[in-house]
Amino acid sequence: MTEVILVLVTCPNPEVASAIARQLVEEELVACGNILPTVRSIYRWQGEVQDEPESLLILKTRPELFEPVRQRVLALHPYEVPEVLSLRPDAGHRAYLDWVLGSTKLPSPG
Amino acid sequence: MTEVILVLVTCPNPEVASAIARQLVEEELVACGNILPTVRSIYRWQGEVQDEPESLLILKTRPELFEPVRQRVLALHPYEVPEVLSLRPDAGHRAYLDWVLGSTKLPSPG
Amino acid sequence: MTEVILVLVTCPNPEVASAIARQLVEEELVACGNILPTVRSIYRWQGEVQDEPESLLILKTRPELFEPVRQRVLALHPYEVPEVLSLRPDAGHRAYLDWVLGSTKLPSPG
Repeated sequence: MTEVILVLVTCPNPEVASAIARQLVEEELVACGNILPTVRSIYRWQGEVQDEPESLLILKTRPELFEPVRQRVLALHPYEVPEVLSLRPDAGHRAYLDWVLGSTKLPSPG
Repeated sequence: MTEVILVLVTCPNPEVASAIARQLVEEELVACGNILPTVRSIYRWQGEVQDEPESLLILKTRPELFEPVRQRVLALHPYEVPEVLSLRPDAGHRAYLDWVLGSTKLPSPG
Repeated sequence: MTEVILVLVTCPNPEVASAIARQLVEEELVACGNILPTVRSIYRWQGEVQDEPESLLILKTRPELFEPVRQRVLALHPYEVPEVLSLRPDAGHRAYLDWVLGSTKLPSPG
């Protein structure tokens, strides 16, 4: 396993996705965010199947930062229950992994 | 590991992808489907390298539903050999995981 | 775990992504490449937060081919430090897995 994770967050639109990505990059909680602006989401809500436009945000960070990232996404995201899922790559290009680690830092306690 | 999986299915176009997603949401085999409508796929077919438009469908469900989902995708998909791959998140937002579990149910036997 | 991996590579544009995919398919290092042409990437570079268009390339191959794929991506990619990350599906449609294995081969030594 690598020391990097991909965190997937679905957002209502690209503006929300990039605002969250920018904020977390500035706070050095993630190294970068990729926004896939045009997604169609199909799901059931209050008994009806919905078909809504969304955007997918993929954040790159360290496993030990998943929890702080999750909390900041909850604070910044308009949904009551946003998708926040972590995928752990099993291999990666060493220099890129080092760039992710070098671009992130554990939040100072308190 | 979480109790949720992402199931990736490549489709010839967004219409097929959303029809499969809608059917599996209605059958409560998946909680939701995200469709990335515009994908370009490059692969070899009968000795020639092909470059074709496709769409990517990402379904969210439980690991124990991978097999029923795989069978229903095969029944609904126009390809002879569709891509059906499961990725298992190693962490996730608890309320979202519960929403996926609450939106899906094991098919009744028989 | 399956005998297949997804290799994620971010590229500056769809042309670079499809050129890399085409080359690796021809060399039978990967079975296929999916290009998501329109991605927005937010990251810090030399102290400034950047917001740049990119494309995401998803390659399908075997785990034992990750290293040769990584080396060929480095040779073909314009970035100094490209993202090359491998995700390992935990389940898959058998016929599709066999297609990926049948479409790839280990490079001959030397």
